[in-house]
Amino acid sequence: MKWAQSVIVTLRTIRTLSTIVTCHARHRRMLVRFAGLGLGAATLTTVAAASGNTNADVLTPFLDVSSFMAEPVTPLSTLVKDKDDMKVKMEMLIMKIQADFCRALENEEDPSNRFIVDRWTRAEGGGGVTCVIQNGKTFEKAGVNVSVVHGILPVDAVRQMKARGKELIGKELPFFAAGISSVIHPSNPHVPTVHFNYRYFEVTQENGEKMWWFGGGTDLTPYYLVEEDVQHFHSTLKKACDLHDAGYYPKFKKWCDEYFLVSHRNESRGVGGIFFDDFEMHSQEDCFNFIKSCAESVIPSYVPLVKKHRNDPYTGAERDWQLLRRGRYVEFNLVYDRGTKFGLYTPGARIESILMSLPVYAKWEYMHSPSDGTPEAKLTEILKNPKEWI
Amino acid sequence: MKWAQSVIVTLRTIRTLSTIVTCHARHRRMLVRFAGLGLGAATLTTVAAASGNTNADVLTPFLDVSSFMAEPVTPLSTLVKDKDDMKVKMEMLIMKIQADFCRALENEEDPSNRFIVDRWTRAEGGGGVTCVIQNGKTFEKAGVNVSVVHGILPVDAVRQMKARGKELIGKELPFFAAGISSVIHPSNPHVPTVHFNYRYFEVTQENGEKMWWFGGGTDLTPYYLVEEDVQHFHSTLKKACDLHDAGYYPKFKKWCDEYFLVSHRNESRGVGGIFFDDFEMHSQEDCFNFIKSCAESVIPSYVPLVKKHRNDPYTGAERDWQLLRRGRYVEFNLVYDRGTKFGLYTPGARIESILMSLPVYAKWEYMHSPSDGTPEAKLTEILKNPKEWI
Repeated sequence: MKWAQSVIVTLRTIRTLSTIVTCHARHRRMLVRFAGLGLGAATLTTVAAASGNTNADVLTPFLDVSSFMAEPVTPLSTLVKDKDDMKVKMEMLIMKIQADFCRALENEEDPSNRFIVDRWTRAEGGGGVTCVIQNGKTFEKAGVNVSVVHGILPVDAVRQMKARGKELIGKELPFFAAGISSVIHPSNPHVPTVHFNYRYFEVTQENGEKMWWFGGGTDLTPYYLVEEDVQHFHSTLKKACDLHDAGYYPKFKKWCDEYFLVSHRNESRGVGGIFFDDFEMHSQEDCFNFIKSCAESVIPSYVPLVKKHRNDPYTGAERDWQLLRRGRYVEFNLVYDRGTKFGLYTPGARIESILMSLPVYAKWEYMHSPSDGTPEAKLTEILKNPKEWI
Repeated sequence: MKWAQSVIVTLRTIRTLSTIVTCHARHRRMLVRFAGLGLGAATLTTVAAASGNTNADVLTPFLDVSSFMAEPVTPLSTLVKDKDDMKVKMEMLIMKIQADFCRALENEEDPSNRFIVDRWTRAEGGGGVTCVIQNGKTFEKAGVNVSVVHGILPVDAVRQMKARGKELIGKELPFFAAGISSVIHPSNPHVPTVHFNYRYFEVTQENGEKMWWFGGGTDLTPYYLVEEDVQHFHSTLKKACDLHDAGYYPKFKKWCDEYFLVSHRNESRGVGGIFFDDFEMHSQEDCFNFIKSCAESVIPSYVPLVKKHRNDPYTGAERDWQLLRRGRYVEFNLVYDRGTKFGLYTPGARIESILMSLPVYAKWEYMHSPSDGTPEAKLTEILKNPKEWI
């Protein structure tokens, strides 16, 4: 069992026709590369066939998984069989969003830095696909993680849910969770950090009643404030929200400001975006379509800002400020973030995937405070007093 | 009131006869230096006299505060009047321990880097003295903080106490807390980090019953394992414990291993030391004497290791490993440490003093794992399998 947990099969992007198998045996890491194994749609068919229940018919447009960063977590045969189940629809959506976003980022990166793709399984049920660029030219750290897990939600994790307002009946409950989460820490201090997370939950209560809900959000953390960039970011999210309900953006913008507050500093983590949880007020289909619009708005909201600033000149002092702000990012993620806490309290959770959100470097300086009138002070002022951007 | 909270009066060490007044008004920091104001015992008398109730008689041996890093938090007149009260005895002890430790560290530091001394007051009651060296030659960050606070313990902080096993009756309770806490992050990766904390609590429950207890500990976090150094460290702590009860060291060594566990990594923060809480099983006097022995053992347990290694040569790769381990230190402090949580949940707490425990730089690398047979792997092995050192 221990062995099963520690073996991580890493499938390098199907399109590059190479595979990395990474075996973690205690403190040893063996990297074995197989190139040109003829992956792609055909290989996926093979993998699916190996699991017993499929044939060439699986390659319907619905199951076009050839562009994904790795094979989905759930066997293709199950994906085909249950294709109308929300669990499957969500898995397919987040695998596609992951692939699209990773490629959009790779377009802004030096060709020598491609995403490492770790496909992992969770002994207790399910698994995920973690994509990371580290020490790239544009991206000091870029992590895009998909996880599709199921099993028994332990007491501490149920408590995290209850703290959030979800009234769940029972102590340990069967659950299913599928989500994508991503944090991008660019190298250049003039490019903001972005975070997004979209997730779907199912929990079966002690009385047998099944509950489901969605949650998520996208938010921006600049190191230097460029108002028109923040306006572009918020406008793009607003457009996605407005497709569904004109009331969503103002409501979820406010929720975001409240959620991403570093309380002990009395300052926001960044300039916000949208955030929501326990999203279940319409049909499952309507909720899903809203999530889809939000997730699809990540690239147009963020990538133009990377393009615009990734080659901006910057000073050592600006880099230093970026690291200090990354210290605050770490404070928020480790002290307050519910997703992180949920992960840390879930047995068998893959810690490296949860903590990939942390920056490569962070800095803390006793009593640091930017001087009046500086761009650093201007950002701090906005973080202490969140405003409307559009 | 806001203004009162944001004004921090910084008294530079009495012995150097200079004073720094630091006013934090919003984002502005004004530094005004007054030199040669004739501080020292005489000035302290003046300060005490200004508070109304004292005279030359206060300068009894009990009140020899001339060596402290700053004036104690409690007015000298009160300290004299209540000199047999445990609150006063504890404040005098921690002020002395702070001064002795800071000087012992300054002896290992370049003369151009002396401790900055911030004496602060807490609007809700009490205050503290925070001493910090930052970016020194020997010490990248050294923080030694004394706090003596009182007021009403809020609901969230009471909950932190209850989680620890303390069964307190009531929701919001009058409390007094006096403690010293310190974290030393040396520049050289061959010098270990040390942390210690000794504290005294009084809480008055809703039924009027007053409870008191002590807590504390000292623990070591090396980046490279030198077994004889760890043995020296543990032996010194054991000697201090054995003066009081031969059962203390084994019990508190085990408690330390259990407490400083980074659960989500299943590894210890360091090589342990001693840790205890809810210490109240003897007379107040006996408990205090034990705390005193422990606090006095910090210098002999740690400073010899600084002397021994502070000029060791080291490589960039060794520095890198130190930063990665500091990332783990941050994880423990922000996710698990009860002292940090207690601070973050206590209104009016001085965040800069609580978070001075964080290193200047920390690093996270996705899927980092040291290679077999390296000194880094040797340390990791010990962190995963705590052992007996003596």
